[in-house]
Amino acid sequence: MKQKANFLALLLTLFVTFIACRNQPQTKSGAETEVHDAATVADPLPSWNDGASKQSIVEFVTKTTTEGNADFVPVPDRIACFDNDGTLWSEQPIYFQFFFAIDRIKAMASQHPEWKTKQPFKALLEGDMKTVMAGGEKALLQIVMTTHSGMTTDEFSKTVKDWLATATHPKTGKHYNEMIYQPMVELLKYLRTNNYKTFIVSGGGADFMRPWVELAYGIPPEQVIGSSGKVKYDMLNGKSVLIKIPELNFIDDKEGKPIGIHQYIGKRPIFTAGNSDGDYAMLQYTCTSNTPHFGLIVHHTDSIREYAYDRVSSIGHLEKGLDDAAKYNWLIVDMKEDWKEIFSK
Amino acid sequence: MKQKANFLALLLTLFVTFIACRNQPQTKSGAETEVHDAATVADPLPSWNDGASKQSIVEFVTKTTTEGNADFVPVPDRIACFDNDGTLWSEQPIYFQFFFAIDRIKAMASQHPEWKTKQPFKALLEGDMKTVMAGGEKALLQIVMTTHSGMTTDEFSKTVKDWLATATHPKTGKHYNEMIYQPMVELLKYLRTNNYKTFIVSGGGADFMRPWVELAYGIPPEQVIGSSGKVKYDMLNGKSVLIKIPELNFIDDKEGKPIGIHQYIGKRPIFTAGNSDGDYAMLQYTCTSNTPHFGLIVHHTDSIREYAYDRVSSIGHLEKGLDDAAKYNWLIVDMKEDWKEIFSK
Repeated sequence: MKQKANFLALLLTLFVTFIACRNQPQTKSGAETEVHDAATVADPLPSWNDGASKQSIVEFVTKTTTEGNADFVPVPDRIACFDNDGTLWSEQPIYFQFFFAIDRIKAMASQHPEWKTKQPFKALLEGDMKTVMAGGEKALLQIVMTTHSGMTTDEFSKTVKDWLATATHPKTGKHYNEMIYQPMVELLKYLRTNNYKTFIVSGGGADFMRPWVELAYGIPPEQVIGSSGKVKYDMLNGKSVLIKIPELNFIDDKEGKPIGIHQYIGKRPIFTAGNSDGDYAMLQYTCTSNTPHFGLIVHHTDSIREYAYDRVSSIGHLEKGLDDAAKYNWLIVDMKEDWKEIFSK
Repeated sequence: MKQKANFLALLLTLFVTFIACRNQPQTKSGAETEVHDAATVADPLPSWNDGASKQSIVEFVTKTTTEGNADFVPVPDRIACFDNDGTLWSEQPIYFQFFFAIDRIKAMASQHPEWKTKQPFKALLEGDMKTVMAGGEKALLQIVMTTHSGMTTDEFSKTVKDWLATATHPKTGKHYNEMIYQPMVELLKYLRTNNYKTFIVSGGGADFMRPWVELAYGIPPEQVIGSSGKVKYDMLNGKSVLIKIPELNFIDDKEGKPIGIHQYIGKRPIFTAGNSDGDYAMLQYTCTSNTPHFGLIVHHTDSIREYAYDRVSSIGHLEKGLDDAAKYNWLIVDMKEDWKEIFSK
């Protein structure tokens, strides 16, 4: 029940922030073209400005992969975990998965004439977010469960792919998978080139991420840990299917992240990247080990090219992480200063 | 609650079979040495006798990995799932994890003087299995929870490794990891050589398997799906730890197997191997897809070199799988006829 309450609290912040963030400044930058000269072609992190942040990453990867170095780490232990929302792609003004839920309600409305008079669907369809909010946790859970259950896992996967191919972000006009951070895609690739195994460990839905993350990040579905609903095994016309049912299975947030890492991977990561206090426990789990480790926090400091937020934001709230970064030697990546480009092209 | 009941039912069969199987014939065979001639060195499955079983495996792997073949499967979709108990190593007279639990109770007894008078511990320590059994599900759950919780995940992992290094099977006198099926180890390797990704999908505990399966099977911990208890995140002397707590998390058996495959891998396997009706749903999930697929059942037919059991056994009960093998085109591997050797050397 506590897990459910946490999940609902998380959902509740979505609409609050949705309304609060509507007027935040936003410009396009992903369309810019950068010409790499011969010198930068060899640079594994070309979208990172030269400086202390980039240097510390390269130093860590170099020392953990250099045989004979005191901090050398054998290949099987090179586990790297990355949060998704706000760490690999944007998360403002609300988590993109919630845009998906809203769009699904709209798309499903024609098959649900009863929604014309039934809350919270009526209000959502009329764009009356205030009334949706007044419905509280119950209303939000109804929206999520209605859009994330009652179909096979294959059908859900197709729906996510179709949505991603067409839907656009309300502020940037970009497709959501065009709001992926190019410097982080380079970092993932750099780690893999050095025989790190890269995982996503996100509060977002595993079934929502898996259909597209392989293409976007080079991370296969089996290396995605996320929140999930329960599924039911069934036979449909002689074929096995899994039906998504409206029950929570696992919430991969806060302490849930190291727990999820243990249940799914069974090893402690040596490299972890996050951006909010939802990643604090996972960073702490990584960075209190006796083995070499690296913790990285993406700090949203660029109000022009993306968004600027930390301590007062509900989405991507970052407070404990900043307070304890020095104690745990976490690298705070300043998006404005450290990143040459924000979005992948 | 249903999940818990299933789990307890599973446990209950353990002691029944433990007693029933005590007198089953058993001889050593793993110590035999086989000399490979030049021709068999190139054979990826040298411990398999030539015949229809071996041929059908090789044909499937060849066609799914030959570009241009109608049944070619791209590398990311080459997912292979293997049950563990009875499929990769022996499971008689009781699941080896239960021998571990019994041995742990004995090892822990000196710190628990109260067990001298407290059931089911008193009976277990006195070797009085009849009284343990009389305690029913409650007694069995007490034994499992007592031995599988109340420590950090790191401590548990070390305990499993230490046990495996010293404990021996009551009938064969071998270490438990010497009762691994050499033909299946070769099959795993053969699949990986052909860019299949191999996973364990077992009713056994994930935390029990992960410490040793990489060395035994070449399968890393992050590719092990198993039953699990819950863990709690905590700080101990400034270090993050995960404490194993006495609550069930997930039972990876029967319909739980395709569910686990979805929650952990997020893809439908194309190759699945099992040995009991606990693997039926996973085999069915694999073999009712529109893509090429292969289902394999290890049939325990060798009472001399291992054990012979199927329809009347509680452990590794195999009935539906045999009945429906023809319908789903599952390969029934006859251990006695198909395997040159049983155990790895």
